[in-house]
Amino acid sequence: MAALAQAVMAGDRRALARAITLVESRRSDHAAVASALLQAVMPATGGAVRVGISGAPGVGKSTFVEALGSRLVERDLTIAVLAIDPSSTRSGGSILGDKTRMGKLARAPQAFIRPTPAGRTQGGVARRTREALLLCEAAGFDVVVVETVGVGQSEVAVAAMVDCFVLLVAPGGGDDLQGIKRGVMELADVVVVTKADGDLAAPARLAAADYGHALGLLRPRSAAWKPRVLLCSAVTGAGVAEVWAAVEEQRQALVDAGEMAGLRAGQARNALWADVHDRLGSALRSDPAVAATAAGVERSVVAGELAPSAGADRILAAFRSGGWGGPRSEPR
Amino acid sequence: MAALAQAVMAGDRRALARAITLVESRRSDHAAVASALLQAVMPATGGAVRVGISGAPGVGKSTFVEALGSRLVERDLTIAVLAIDPSSTRSGGSILGDKTRMGKLARAPQAFIRPTPAGRTQGGVARRTREALLLCEAAGFDVVVVETVGVGQSEVAVAAMVDCFVLLVAPGGGDDLQGIKRGVMELADVVVVTKADGDLAAPARLAAADYGHALGLLRPRSAAWKPRVLLCSAVTGAGVAEVWAAVEEQRQALVDAGEMAGLRAGQARNALWADVHDRLGSALRSDPAVAATAAGVERSVVAGELAPSAGADRILAAFRSGGWGGPRSEPR
Repeated sequence: MAALAQAVMAGDRRALARAITLVESRRSDHAAVASALLQAVMPATGGAVRVGISGAPGVGKSTFVEALGSRLVERDLTIAVLAIDPSSTRSGGSILGDKTRMGKLARAPQAFIRPTPAGRTQGGVARRTREALLLCEAAGFDVVVVETVGVGQSEVAVAAMVDCFVLLVAPGGGDDLQGIKRGVMELADVVVVTKADGDLAAPARLAAADYGHALGLLRPRSAAWKPRVLLCSAVTGAGVAEVWAAVEEQRQALVDAGEMAGLRAGQARNALWADVHDRLGSALRSDPAVAATAAGVERSVVAGELAPSAGADRILAAFRSGGWGGPRSEPR
Repeated sequence: MAALAQAVMAGDRRALARAITLVESRRSDHAAVASALLQAVMPATGGAVRVGISGAPGVGKSTFVEALGSRLVERDLTIAVLAIDPSSTRSGGSILGDKTRMGKLARAPQAFIRPTPAGRTQGGVARRTREALLLCEAAGFDVVVVETVGVGQSEVAVAAMVDCFVLLVAPGGGDDLQGIKRGVMELADVVVVTKADGDLAAPARLAAADYGHALGLLRPRSAAWKPRVLLCSAVTGAGVAEVWAAVEEQRQALVDAGEMAGLRAGQARNALWADVHDRLGSALRSDPAVAATAAGVERSVVAGELAPSAGADRILAAFRSGGWGGPRSEPR
């Protein structure tokens, strides 16, 4: 483990990949090693610009990340991309294809692209992504991008782990502005209207104006930074540099306002408590005393003989009095 | 408590309102009474048609619910409306205004309208809504509508507690179809395009075709029911009867396929486990041993000296060895 931690901190890509596989593992004998590994690399973490990039399917996310990544690489910056897709739990799909879709970036020695497999729980996926982010920082990456797609829940989790949250939107605009995206809009530090070229150039400008108006109605996440709307075309490459400039400018604004330390402290606290709740849930699910009680309680609740709240009391009583009080390692 | 349970089951509206206030209460001395009350009314629950109605702000949700409710009342059915708005936690707003917006329905003796205040946690709001639903059933309502607005998370919770999930959409359509609404679309049994009158009649028809196409691409929740898209105008009243006919038809399809019992069993199991996780989280938050440990752990994690996972281990060890093992009632 100590050797692996050293190799990660020395920037060894294969060691980094192995380390991420370790923290992603569900094997209980891996849990203690993963925990020790993370603890060992902690002093080397914190140095990257943490960027979240989100957007609906079809908005051109992979293309944008590839264009942005390639530009950073040209500027001699190193970039790690962690791509999560919690929605694949239900639809059965996977984003492993993203790696090939970002072919040019994946071949650059300054880049590291890693899909995070969707897990059984949203909390588990978020935890693994946060830990992979720390490992990438320990490996010395200048920029770590967390890429996600979802219906709101995963965006909230990602926004809580990054310094700058970039939301990609299609040049459609209009009615959907006031709609379901509102909750996600509230998270955005930078909104990028994609595909702003050719026939879509004019609608993209209209959409940008609409989004700018919508952002103006929302309370900004920080008094130091007013969220901005930008236009971008992956085909012409126009606007990509401006997006990165906005990310840097937002960072500087937070630094100047003395908010950076508070932001990072908030990320750390969020990671801590999310881990606590995630592990507590895992402990409950794998508790033998709970398992022994649950079937009977479920039957009574399903039969309408027992109120769900009363059933919950019985299961929690089993958890409290049973195995969870005993000395054993937490499941991850 | 026994008198209150009797009064609720006798259909006394004021008793029902008091009972809901009791299950919504955060006071620890109310928890045991609320639990006993729910247990007492359990035999009288299960009789209502449980309908979820969701849609973005501005889609005309209150108007639709009022139109639907008034039609049910004309048919001598009783209807209870539970309106939740988890998004108000962030924006500071409230939907208490909904009750006045549904003025005509609120005055009908066959109707009961109750806003569920947004709470600190999503889980808490969902639990209170589920318990209010059981109380409304115990009070004998034929139909219980759970109305919500949100960015995906609350819709998932509501879809898990109702028999039929109705999604209202604006006549915009187009680009937003393939986007963030997808996760919510997957939950819908009936999609209603609102405002289908006047200048919007034609775009509404186009949107309905688009949504129909989109639904065709999704895996239905049940093999017995293919989700349907309908048009509706609150101004002319056109389409409201058809929406209710679809709700009844979906119900009959599930009954005929022998799926109704399984659906209700799933709702009960979901309520049980959601309650378990919600209470466990509350117990953690209010645990004195956790409180005593957490501040120091938080400082170390924020300082980057301790990995979040290692910090989580310490907090959970405190929870396990500390007060939670002792004999005291669960906080709600």
